[in-house]
Amino acid sequence: MQVGIVGLGLMGGSLGLALRERAGAVVHGCDPDPEARSAALDRGCVDTAAADLAAACDGADLVVVCAPVAQIATAVAEVLDLAPATATVSDIGSTKANVVRSVPAGARARFVGGHPVCGAEARGAEHARAEMFDGATYFLTPVAETDPGRYAQLHALVGRIGARPVAIDPSAHDRLLALTSHLPSVLANVLVAQVASTTVDGFDPLATAGGSFRDMTRVAGANARIWVDILRDNREPIADALRDHRRRIDEFLVALDGDDAGYLARVIAQASQGRRRQLESAYTAPPDDLFVVVTHIADRPGALSGIMQAFGAARINIEDLALTHQSVDRGGVLEITVAGARVAAQAVDLLDAQGYQAAARQVTDTGGDL
Amino acid sequence: MQVGIVGLGLMGGSLGLALRERAGAVVHGCDPDPEARSAALDRGCVDTAAADLAAACDGADLVVVCAPVAQIATAVAEVLDLAPATATVSDIGSTKANVVRSVPAGARARFVGGHPVCGAEARGAEHARAEMFDGATYFLTPVAETDPGRYAQLHALVGRIGARPVAIDPSAHDRLLALTSHLPSVLANVLVAQVASTTVDGFDPLATAGGSFRDMTRVAGANARIWVDILRDNREPIADALRDHRRRIDEFLVALDGDDAGYLARVIAQASQGRRRQLESAYTAPPDDLFVVVTHIADRPGALSGIMQAFGAARINIEDLALTHQSVDRGGVLEITVAGARVAAQAVDLLDAQGYQAAARQVTDTGGDL
Repeated sequence: MQVGIVGLGLMGGSLGLALRERAGAVVHGCDPDPEARSAALDRGCVDTAAADLAAACDGADLVVVCAPVAQIATAVAEVLDLAPATATVSDIGSTKANVVRSVPAGARARFVGGHPVCGAEARGAEHARAEMFDGATYFLTPVAETDPGRYAQLHALVGRIGARPVAIDPSAHDRLLALTSHLPSVLANVLVAQVASTTVDGFDPLATAGGSFRDMTRVAGANARIWVDILRDNREPIADALRDHRRRIDEFLVALDGDDAGYLARVIAQASQGRRRQLESAYTAPPDDLFVVVTHIADRPGALSGIMQAFGAARINIEDLALTHQSVDRGGVLEITVAGARVAAQAVDLLDAQGYQAAARQVTDTGGDL
Repeated sequence: MQVGIVGLGLMGGSLGLALRERAGAVVHGCDPDPEARSAALDRGCVDTAAADLAAACDGADLVVVCAPVAQIATAVAEVLDLAPATATVSDIGSTKANVVRSVPAGARARFVGGHPVCGAEARGAEHARAEMFDGATYFLTPVAETDPGRYAQLHALVGRIGARPVAIDPSAHDRLLALTSHLPSVLANVLVAQVASTTVDGFDPLATAGGSFRDMTRVAGANARIWVDILRDNREPIADALRDHRRRIDEFLVALDGDDAGYLARVIAQASQGRRRQLESAYTAPPDDLFVVVTHIADRPGALSGIMQAFGAARINIEDLALTHQSVDRGGVLEITVAGARVAAQAVDLLDAQGYQAAARQVTDTGGDL
């Protein structure tokens, strides 16, 4: 199988690597940037790398456009012209409705939009990893005109590189991502911008903010170049989600002003149920079986190693783990998520035996910064 | 020194434990709940535990009210009546203006409000840990009438239990926490409630949401009983922060509708600068020196142990660490934060040598769910 990859950044590079390693594909990449080409070649992402599109399209069975969001529609149009009529064309952009709409009616049978939800952890093909797709949701957006055979082929290929293919209508995809990715990103940015521009009696709120604030705002300030394009491309679904959010903020304000304890409790209860549903889909264990074991450890090399060895020896499987630094003097807080009350108790005992003071709580029994 | 602790939950218990272990105090606790009393005694949080307030106040040099927010003002009034006139009285509530205002003028010299920002990770004195206060910000809210000697004594005591005392005006405290804790909590709850009540073409958005959404909404659905009281008690500063937030959402909507790329970029740039300031206060290393090393590891007991041993042996100090579970088949994503480009490169090499595909990026170069 011959695959063309248009754009050799982190995503294009990783896709090439995965297709070569896991699907036995021969991959021809292209990128106008010579550094991107040599990084992709060095990392083994591609068999060949050229400056122009034609090289990636020539003789390809499949061409995947991995360009930035704002350039995808143009690149797809060019690829549809240059590639053999037998070639399937796809892309990996974060938004789907506009690119699918841009494909001329005569070419729709050959085009299947895609969006693997992964890969924000680095930039450039020098960081490409085939493993990036492992377990990741990979949206595919076939439409009525899409050739079913081509769709089935792409679906199978997505599975072979380790991702989880999910078929969805292009507009539904964009409304879904507006809610789960774009709206949260907007809120995180607006929240940090707000807190950053406020001082309270000489205190910088950012300097006193706790772990919850840090968790909530980790995506704030991310990749302005990429995000502005995403926000613009998907602006209607995002604006709809944001308007719904504003309506809910207004309701919340009415409840606050009216000291309506019942309303406040109902919103928290709704959120609590939502969080349970999220846990149900993220873990195999039922939400109530998930426990967080908390302890405090010294901030020195090797402190974690002893704990991990003890957990490994006791065959305790770690679902999630977070070590949050506090300071060099004081060390950090270690939170280990495990499945099962018995396992949690065993973990607490292990830590206590190593001289730590540990405690366990149910994941569903969240705290927040009190 | 004799200390009375009123309310033997996680916080009261931990405070008693820390005062006994680190300040040599004799601690008399009280709680109406017999189970709380015996848990506090078992864990060594108190020397004695009684049902009624009088026992905690009798002969005390200091009495700290550790009751739920809605009960603090009443308990403080009772303690001011029952304790010796020489006793200093404090509390550890999450909001400060109302309780300080509730103290009669004649007793203000003796009262110093307090708020240690920690302790949301479990409930009940059976999980008490002296280490909970290590490095935590511990707000103290003296007012003009406060006896300076008593304040200085409490300030020193807070330092002895490992926390970082920060003096602040009670109202400023509440405005600060409204911004950094209460507003983020409201937004997380409203966001999850919104996403939970929306389906998109049969898809449950919560089931497809990625890591950024999970990070942002970790505090959603937390402790309705506690949070409703906090929201009600601090409703004016929270409503002010929420109204400012709504104004910013409105501006953002205007920019989205008008396709104003410059505005969108400016908000992200503001957020990016804010995030840098946060990183500056959270770490000793400058923000640009912080790197995240990312790799994918198998989901089996002991997988982390080998990595941690190698890091320990190489004397690589871990600033933060997060292991996010993907699935039993696919394993999880490991993110290790280290200080220094050279250390990050060394960490990548170590992981590559163990057969992982690792990549490093600057912490300031955040991704988000693309």
